[in-house]
Amino acid sequence: MSFTNETHDPQLRCWLQSAEEADCEFPIQNLPFAEFRRQGSNQAFRGGVAIGDQIVDLAAVATAGVFAGAAQQAAEACAAPALNHFMSLGKQAWSALRLALSRALRQGAPQEAAIQACLVPQDQAEYSLPCQIGDYTDFYSSVHHATAVGSLFRPDKPLLPNYKWIPVGYHGRTSSIAISGHCFYRPQGQTMSPDAAEPSVEPCKRLDHELELGIFIGAGNAQGEPIPIQNAEDHVFGLCLFNDWSARDIQAWEYQPLGPFLAKNFASTLSPWIVTLEALAPFRAPLMRPESDPRPLPYLHCASNSAQGSLDIELQVLIQTERMRKAGQAPEVLATSNFVHSYWTIAQLVAHHSVNGCNLRPGDLFGSGTQSGPNPQQAGSMLELSRGGKQALRLRNGESRTFIEDGDTVILRGACQRQGAARIGFGEVTSTVLPAKTLQSKTLQSKTLPAGQN
Amino acid sequence: MSFTNETHDPQLRCWLQSAEEADCEFPIQNLPFAEFRRQGSNQAFRGGVAIGDQIVDLAAVATAGVFAGAAQQAAEACAAPALNHFMSLGKQAWSALRLALSRALRQGAPQEAAIQACLVPQDQAEYSLPCQIGDYTDFYSSVHHATAVGSLFRPDKPLLPNYKWIPVGYHGRTSSIAISGHCFYRPQGQTMSPDAAEPSVEPCKRLDHELELGIFIGAGNAQGEPIPIQNAEDHVFGLCLFNDWSARDIQAWEYQPLGPFLAKNFASTLSPWIVTLEALAPFRAPLMRPESDPRPLPYLHCASNSAQGSLDIELQVLIQTERMRKAGQAPEVLATSNFVHSYWTIAQLVAHHSVNGCNLRPGDLFGSGTQSGPNPQQAGSMLELSRGGKQALRLRNGESRTFIEDGDTVILRGACQRQGAARIGFGEVTSTVLPAKTLQSKTLQSKTLPAGQN
Repeated sequence: MSFTNETHDPQLRCWLQSAEEADCEFPIQNLPFAEFRRQGSNQAFRGGVAIGDQIVDLAAVATAGVFAGAAQQAAEACAAPALNHFMSLGKQAWSALRLALSRALRQGAPQEAAIQACLVPQDQAEYSLPCQIGDYTDFYSSVHHATAVGSLFRPDKPLLPNYKWIPVGYHGRTSSIAISGHCFYRPQGQTMSPDAAEPSVEPCKRLDHELELGIFIGAGNAQGEPIPIQNAEDHVFGLCLFNDWSARDIQAWEYQPLGPFLAKNFASTLSPWIVTLEALAPFRAPLMRPESDPRPLPYLHCASNSAQGSLDIELQVLIQTERMRKAGQAPEVLATSNFVHSYWTIAQLVAHHSVNGCNLRPGDLFGSGTQSGPNPQQAGSMLELSRGGKQALRLRNGESRTFIEDGDTVILRGACQRQGAARIGFGEVTSTVLPAKTLQSKTLQSKTLPAGQN
Repeated sequence: MSFTNETHDPQLRCWLQSAEEADCEFPIQNLPFAEFRRQGSNQAFRGGVAIGDQIVDLAAVATAGVFAGAAQQAAEACAAPALNHFMSLGKQAWSALRLALSRALRQGAPQEAAIQACLVPQDQAEYSLPCQIGDYTDFYSSVHHATAVGSLFRPDKPLLPNYKWIPVGYHGRTSSIAISGHCFYRPQGQTMSPDAAEPSVEPCKRLDHELELGIFIGAGNAQGEPIPIQNAEDHVFGLCLFNDWSARDIQAWEYQPLGPFLAKNFASTLSPWIVTLEALAPFRAPLMRPESDPRPLPYLHCASNSAQGSLDIELQVLIQTERMRKAGQAPEVLATSNFVHSYWTIAQLVAHHSVNGCNLRPGDLFGSGTQSGPNPQQAGSMLELSRGGKQALRLRNGESRTFIEDGDTVILRGACQRQGAARIGFGEVTSTVLPAKTLQSKTLQSKTLPAGQN
């Protein structure tokens, strides 16, 4: 495989030793962005780029004037406590900073000492949301997930007639999106048991994770100006991991006719690191859409550049129960999948979202939808893994799960790896479920977990 | 009727003559909030309160130090270019400023000259959105609308089994919410004609207004902490008029299974003035829920204070077509309704939204849902007025409408009036439809209308 530009060259060597280790998530070819500060400090959050086990503090880089021209301007934009302005600058600015960082991090680079002075160890950092998320849209782009879930909610017609024509999506809630490490209370809500005469309010019994990619919009569009699919990816800053927590029993009772609401808006969790689309360029893959399926309508069809179809991103869901955590046992894999199975591409999501003139803004977030693959063990949710709660999963320590229980930590991981390309890791996103607080409960339960949870 | 506190006293007289006229929207008992600046100026937007045909510039009031204590602090918060901080201060701060303004505006008030120096005529002002809207949720609180629309989309089951148990709602888009006066392009999108073999993309043929109230959240709640219904209204800052534009043909094809998306997110329009809940206190009305309907579940039931049920707010939809505008004809009434017909109260919307621990933030917006009344002429959308497009409305000038056409301006108005209370007006919200821009179109169409559109 040939590399796309010099920043992708797998032969590049970084002067930082930890970036040169074989299983490194953040080698010099990755360079993902986050907002961080030194743990426990009163510093303002600032943009940073991961390299090995360190973070390049971009506020420090900007102040030191390590770069010049467009890269310096971009670093200055990253000094802010949210990346929205940097995101709004567009592809050329992102590329300029990436290239400058790539060059400054290479063995023998004259900027080594200057960058060294700007490093903060990742294990001494805390992260915030990377930007102000103006709007969050959740898509439904895995046909395997849509079919599996549809068959549970609507056995007679799992896949609705619009699925293969429209990248189905709906608006979600931004206020309850938190960064990795979040502990949240099990939601309570109205549910209707099949055997009950009327609904009741109780803690969710079917709490579920959703294995998703988060997609951050960079440059936006004006209201009334659709984004043509040919340019759609120019508007995408990058990708992260996203756990879109769901309450399946609440969802089943509330979702008609206007869609999921309280079943989804109590918590969602983002990984701190945004991997840029540029870093993912070596991991393009052909679209998996069967020939017999409808050809996308022209506004969703990009004849000129079919290489911009899928992305080969390996995804993993792990669980660490409270008992595993107390026994010092490592998290256990629940499922593995790959974004390559997505029925709709990122470019199609962007083109569809804006075809009616809807304006996207820098920092807007799309969820890809749960990324289940074609095989049952590639299911990105417990709803699918347990076949609607009918079939419990047996864990190695003897525990079993149909849905997620109190004290469970769910971890999503992602990485790209291919022959002839450097590994591009996403890091991970973790979140932990606390017991429900009932409406009556006056005792505030602890929001912090015992040390050593991870 | 007795008044709730001294600011409601219908006998209060203002030293400003325009506030004393019989049909005045903004008498001394109203005192609604907006963000404004002098038209065409480069001023920062700032908070203001309407009185008669003037605006009290709260940034000027704060600078001049007209008030003291809590009222002065509240005025200082209102000097900001968005009201979020003021909203976050809570009910006591809002009341303190309201009381101070009420006293300063009364005939004989010693602050008359100081306030006079802070007045800006409304016809020399331009408005912005009143706050940063973090999240927007649209409800479906009129059972008459839900039944009428449901019977068009699902003739077999117009009202779903959850309707009388759950205040049905879903998340909407904040990026495309604009302030009154907005002109927007007719959306295009995928639709599926009943007689077509496959969908096509074209300008919306069934563009519709929705007559809603906008409800602004003041003080928020922490994630995981439901708001008990007894306190729910303490979290509500105030109400405005809201036109939630809808593309019915796009909606019909896309809305299953996850709800409306592109059918709703291209444009919504807010009136500039937020009428506080405190100003609306004299217009409480008993709930209209029939005895035979299910009793709300405890978290939605407020036994202690049933007077906090409905609000008697008269609502009106008007249309001014391009032809009417050119002929200098006044807008024509399409429908009148009243918020008193709402099946769910504002307190129920707040309690339901947060029962799962979802956090509301200051400045969040709820749409009430289309406020149709029990009679067909009280329908808050064209979909209902034209019975799904089957029955055209004849306008006085000979034009007819099934849905909204290019060049049409839709105007929503609202006011409270009762024997023994001062009239509390909402002003109006107007928006105008421009012809669709097709994806191919390169010519930018004018965003401004000929002068004298209103």
